Amino acid sequence: MSSVLFKESDLRQFTESVFKAMGCPEEDATLAADVLLASDLRGIDSHGVARLSGYVRLWKKQRINATPNITIVHETATTATVDGDSGLGLVVAPFAMKLAMEKAGKYGSGWVSVRNSNHFGIAGYHAMQAVKKDMIGFAMTNASPLVAPTFTTERLLGTNPMCYAFPAGNYPPVVVDMATAAAANGKLEIAQRVGKSIPEGWAQTSAGGPATDANILKSGGSLLPLGSDRDHGSHKGFGLSATVDILTAVLSGANYGPWVPPFVAFLDPLTDLPGKGIGHFLGAMRVDGFRPVEDFKQHMDQWIGRFKAAKPIDEEQPVVIPGEPEMEAERIRKVQGIPLTDAVVKDLRELGEKLGIEPGIKEL
Amino acid sequence: MSSVLFKESDLRQFTESVFKAMGCPEEDATLAADVLLASDLRGIDSHGVARLSGYVRLWKKQRINATPNITIVHETATTATVDGDSGLGLVVAPFAMKLAMEKAGKYGSGWVSVRNSNHFGIAGYHAMQAVKKDMIGFAMTNASPLVAPTFTTERLLGTNPMCYAFPAGNYPPVVVDMATAAAANGKLEIAQRVGKSIPEGWAQTSAGGPATDANILKSGGSLLPLGSDRDHGSHKGFGLSATVDILTAVLSGANYGPWVPPFVAFLDPLTDLPGKGIGHFLGAMRVDGFRPVEDFKQHMDQWIGRFKAAKPIDEEQPVVIPGEPEMEAERIRKVQGIPLTDAVVKDLRELGEKLGIEPGIKEL
Repeated sequence: MSSVLFKESDLRQFTESVFKAMGCPEEDATLAADVLLASDLRGIDSHGVARLSGYVRLWKKQRINATPNITIVHETATTATVDGDSGLGLVVAPFAMKLAMEKAGKYGSGWVSVRNSNHFGIAGYHAMQAVKKDMIGFAMTNASPLVAPTFTTERLLGTNPMCYAFPAGNYPPVVVDMATAAAANGKLEIAQRVGKSIPEGWAQTSAGGPATDANILKSGGSLLPLGSDRDHGSHKGFGLSATVDILTAVLSGANYGPWVPPFVAFLDPLTDLPGKGIGHFLGAMRVDGFRPVEDFKQHMDQWIGRFKAAKPIDEEQPVVIPGEPEMEAERIRKVQGIPLTDAVVKDLRELGEKLGIEPGIKEL
Repeated sequence: MSSVLFKESDLRQFTESVFKAMGCPEEDATLAADVLLASDLRGIDSHGVARLSGYVRLWKKQRINATPNITIVHETATTATVDGDSGLGLVVAPFAMKLAMEKAGKYGSGWVSVRNSNHFGIAGYHAMQAVKKDMIGFAMTNASPLVAPTFTTERLLGTNPMCYAFPAGNYPPVVVDMATAAAANGKLEIAQRVGKSIPEGWAQTSAGGPATDANILKSGGSLLPLGSDRDHGSHKGFGLSATVDILTAVLSGANYGPWVPPFVAFLDPLTDLPGKGIGHFLGAMRVDGFRPVEDFKQHMDQWIGRFKAAKPIDEEQPVVIPGEPEMEAERIRKVQGIPLTDAVVKDLRELGEKLGIEPGIKEL
């Protein structure tokens, strides 16, 4: 599948215009575009502008509120629950992260559980806000059910990502940003596009058998938790995904498990919902709540340096520090532009025409 | 390998006597025995009294201090760093967890990073203290390096467990307590005892190739992170293990990565240590910092009920809620006794004789 390059600033302007056309206040449109562009810059193509028309469709279905009244519904010195009023997760999650960081600034740590939100983009964007202030950042979200826990064929969990972000000194921050499934759905979509099969261990058939068909989710199959099967620890992947579901949704009053509303507009939410919208969980801890920032950064650099120096199995492939490939992608794409596949370009052009946005996106 | 049953109270008394013979104050001996017995009761045989003589050997080597002066070396309202003064992790970690819970009681959450400690038993014991007070509990520890990150053959990380514990209503708490490796070393030891091979994906050879020999660690092999290989997400297991290493050790001033001192007394720590002892990280968040406890518990019950009701692949094997098997083991072992293998019984009898402990353990 071929792709062409676009300039970051052009895509950013276009994305902002789309959010403004939805009725988002200027500030929210800028913020939401920043979250999406961060994903495209960092090489996580599945979570950036490729999803823009999906947000618009949910807004048209009145499942996304472009002018939410985001409120704090419950609070202590260092904890809070936020109601996103069906707003864009791209706007609701930054509100919650800011609150967590304010609490951390005052008391050492801050933790915010969020209900009544929507897809928040990449977890890394939110956790990394803390790093800028010499804090450790945490971000999680639940998501539409695609993953079957160990021993069942029912899709009861999303790919429920968790992110931990740590500031370093001379090295870039360490950012662990991962779906708790063996492989996220985006990987299956890539295999579909190029007509390839997928490795066993990513998904199972509707009967719970091994699957290598990249389209298996369309015939009742399900994704598998990290670990893939019981022998290789899929119960751990299930446990991590459950942890995300509980912290983001049971704790906040959002929907959980099979009740999480689908991100796609053509599927309606279930009717017996136990909560509101989808859930997030955001946290920040001040590094200097534990030790002086300079000491921490010096040891982070020693930690990173030691792992980078590890003897590789293949001389061509050194150990990859979590967050390093995304940082490298950002460095390159800021200069060379952001590659979009033909399908995404077509989708964005149609979206721009429908919403009457000028100028549309133009190739580099 | 055959095993025989022992009464909980007998094993407890014996274990306390051993810790007292090491010079532990009465209160510490009782607490340390409680942590070890919790592991045996919960069916995690590798982390209970089977390790008792290991603690004694480290004490004899003066690597464990039986009368530590545990101190808070750095603190904010909701964060702290504790120095364990080379004490038993079985005593140091409860001190830190208590501190985290006190902070959570006052401010909503509390987080304590610990340096200069030793092996703390099962993470679940510590996290579950919070559950008793309607808090969510977190516990992590780093450990002797046995695991190679993705793309290297070097053992740079421990099996670094993380635990999240959540109170429920009518159901028992959900306790996610897991090593971040594909399989903990205890699983290889079980295979060794019965002369079986291990599944590919648990360990690799010294050259980074696939291994099915349960003794592979003795010839320079290493354990693999959760996910097993890059295609199946081993970089995620590495990321989780790295997160544990950073929160427990880089944050507290303990040793990290390959510098974590070995649990076994016959291996000396490295000489260029960047920190002190091993590290833990303990946390607590008040449920009512987010929503009323009764609401949370009611939704936890709905969550658990829904997952338990999931259609199984095999009718004989329903979905397992994290923590359920351990709870069931405890129920049975409290009544029927704790099974110990012949090797562990022999080890404990010799230990009792050496330390002159009367009465020794006696079979049920």
